[in-house]
Amino acid sequence: MGVYLDHAATTPMLPEAIDAYARAMSEVGNPSSIHSAGQNARRLLEEAREAVAASLGCDPIEVVFTSGGTEAINLALKGGFWAAAPGKRRLVVPEGEHHATIDTVEWLAAHEGAQVTWVALDEQGVIETDAWAEALHGDDVAMASALWVNNEVGAIEPVDALAAAAASAGVPLHLDAVAAYGHVPISFRELGVAALSVSAHKVGGPVGIGALVLSRKASVVPIVHGGGQQRNVRSGTQDVAAAVSFAVAAQAAVASLDAERSRLTGLRDRLIAGVRAAVPEARLSGPEGSARVASNAHFTFPGAQGDSLLFLLDAAGVAVSTGSACQAGIPEPSHVVLAMGRAAEEASSCLRVTLGRTTTQADVDAFLAALPDAYARAARAGFTTSA
Amino acid sequence: MGVYLDHAATTPMLPEAIDAYARAMSEVGNPSSIHSAGQNARRLLEEAREAVAASLGCDPIEVVFTSGGTEAINLALKGGFWAAAPGKRRLVVPEGEHHATIDTVEWLAAHEGAQVTWVALDEQGVIETDAWAEALHGDDVAMASALWVNNEVGAIEPVDALAAAAASAGVPLHLDAVAAYGHVPISFRELGVAALSVSAHKVGGPVGIGALVLSRKASVVPIVHGGGQQRNVRSGTQDVAAAVSFAVAAQAAVASLDAERSRLTGLRDRLIAGVRAAVPEARLSGPEGSARVASNAHFTFPGAQGDSLLFLLDAAGVAVSTGSACQAGIPEPSHVVLAMGRAAEEASSCLRVTLGRTTTQADVDAFLAALPDAYARAARAGFTTSA
Repeated sequence: MGVYLDHAATTPMLPEAIDAYARAMSEVGNPSSIHSAGQNARRLLEEAREAVAASLGCDPIEVVFTSGGTEAINLALKGGFWAAAPGKRRLVVPEGEHHATIDTVEWLAAHEGAQVTWVALDEQGVIETDAWAEALHGDDVAMASALWVNNEVGAIEPVDALAAAAASAGVPLHLDAVAAYGHVPISFRELGVAALSVSAHKVGGPVGIGALVLSRKASVVPIVHGGGQQRNVRSGTQDVAAAVSFAVAAQAAVASLDAERSRLTGLRDRLIAGVRAAVPEARLSGPEGSARVASNAHFTFPGAQGDSLLFLLDAAGVAVSTGSACQAGIPEPSHVVLAMGRAAEEASSCLRVTLGRTTTQADVDAFLAALPDAYARAARAGFTTSA
Repeated sequence: MGVYLDHAATTPMLPEAIDAYARAMSEVGNPSSIHSAGQNARRLLEEAREAVAASLGCDPIEVVFTSGGTEAINLALKGGFWAAAPGKRRLVVPEGEHHATIDTVEWLAAHEGAQVTWVALDEQGVIETDAWAEALHGDDVAMASALWVNNEVGAIEPVDALAAAAASAGVPLHLDAVAAYGHVPISFRELGVAALSVSAHKVGGPVGIGALVLSRKASVVPIVHGGGQQRNVRSGTQDVAAAVSFAVAAQAAVASLDAERSRLTGLRDRLIAGVRAAVPEARLSGPEGSARVASNAHFTFPGAQGDSLLFLLDAAGVAVSTGSACQAGIPEPSHVVLAMGRAAEEASSCLRVTLGRTTTQADVDAFLAALPDAYARAARAGFTTSA
């Protein structure tokens, strides 16, 4: 394999998490069964829940395992909206959220009669706290939701201020911590928010499992009904092996957070300096220094289409991302970069480079070595109309 | 480990499926990423989708991977109800369905204005086809749903007749094939139904993945919104390793279906004869012979509480089930057995014994050896009021 610098999309599993998964898979027992095999599975599951809770600074009973971050976000938003008192139909959401939030909120607006107040970002991708507090005014707000770390441009959002404003307005707040988990310390207890979503595969755990942390004071209507598992909040046979593996990865990520943050900050700053030296036209999006998550660098490259850059770098053995969802291969301008007040052409010229546990200085240098030629060729190709 | 005879709750993973999982977990790449690592993941995923489709007699594009059977059923029912034309608000559902169906339908009735026509079972747990056809009359039916194999009492339902009646009434039909998969041959194409749900961990695959087979002609509103994966029907990072492992298990289950059906029918009939010889009062629930799934035996034991029997057998090293969901350890009478016209006390005296790939004659004989003493003690204890 080549150089992998797309850790925000998914990061390699920790070998210990793979081993834990494989061991747990060999056991049999549905944790809802009351015989010994079931109770053994239940014990493994609840120990995993305790470890995940410890990694998030919450109580084990507040951890609801889901199939991933997207389901957790859907459960928080739809479930919270449905559980809100009649008359509370408004959602407060910043621009530049992940599509799991945007598409869920738009569905609630189109299908369930939600009103939405979109809160602006500043030119660094940071949520405007004054506008946020303003939007929370009124007794019609069902709930609010915000990214902790912007998954595209790496801005660490002012969650303490966001949470304080929500608490003062009496509005339940959900934090999408998918891109924050393992990169910034999280204490659900200290934040005092209603709910928080994370995903295992962003911290070296398996794809297919995540968690919604749900305060005892918060209530949600389930989006998946059935056997009544997990306090009736999320039905379905619980995935013990995935939870055990998730717990191993979460513990390791939290234990190494400080050291990794220093190490990755050094690599990221070397990368940013290297890009600026190699391609002076490149422009960093999002904050600099400690206001930016250590694992993320994001640039616009004037005159070059992001996906052209991506393909040329891939051909040179370096995997990066444009940052925007690009499901069907149809390049779309980044809604985050647009929300930061940049032009559509700039928002189509993005490259997101994200680092992780396995990233070395050699990876960064390989990217820097491949970039000038890729940029020159992409800029020559210029912009083509998308299919 | 002792004797495991609760394969309907979950069955041991096939060793080859564990190996496939572990291998795929070591690769990195989000199948939505467009670089080579992502496209490699995408290739593995689509090959898995093809193999799962082949096991179900459908086209790969009709396979929507979900987090399991419960989510697949929720997506089929909620999504189908939401997608139905205005004026179509009625759901047709047999009594005795799995809780994933019952609880979803009850939520749609309480929250979304659905009307429900419950169709009766006969005394063998078989859906009454005349009542079914009758219930489908009228142009207000949004959709119908039925179990293929009853997960408690093992009745193989008359799905050809159910599907023909639905087709003739122009009503989209969803089949819950979770308990049928790997036990009866499934051809989605030949049945011509709108949707069909399965789960991997019932056929030796991993927990945490299942599939909704969705006909090209059917439409559903998603229950999980986000990045638009899987034709926008089910968003969220796709779980490549689970899909690869699922495919290995599904292929093996279908390849060995005929041989396993013969082998398990022999073991099941030995078990039924043995129970009748040891405890003449015991009464088999559900059909006999080929109208019953080969892996299932289900009895009522007059005067004994099912969960007492379960605990006593567990202490003797034999894992079985009462058949009813018993989440919090509070014994409840089986809604399936009640729907078959039996009294509440009978419906609380159930034992479900389910066989699988790893079941041997020695397992059956160990159960038969432990039963008489367990029954004598459970009958002495009699019925206690549940907590």
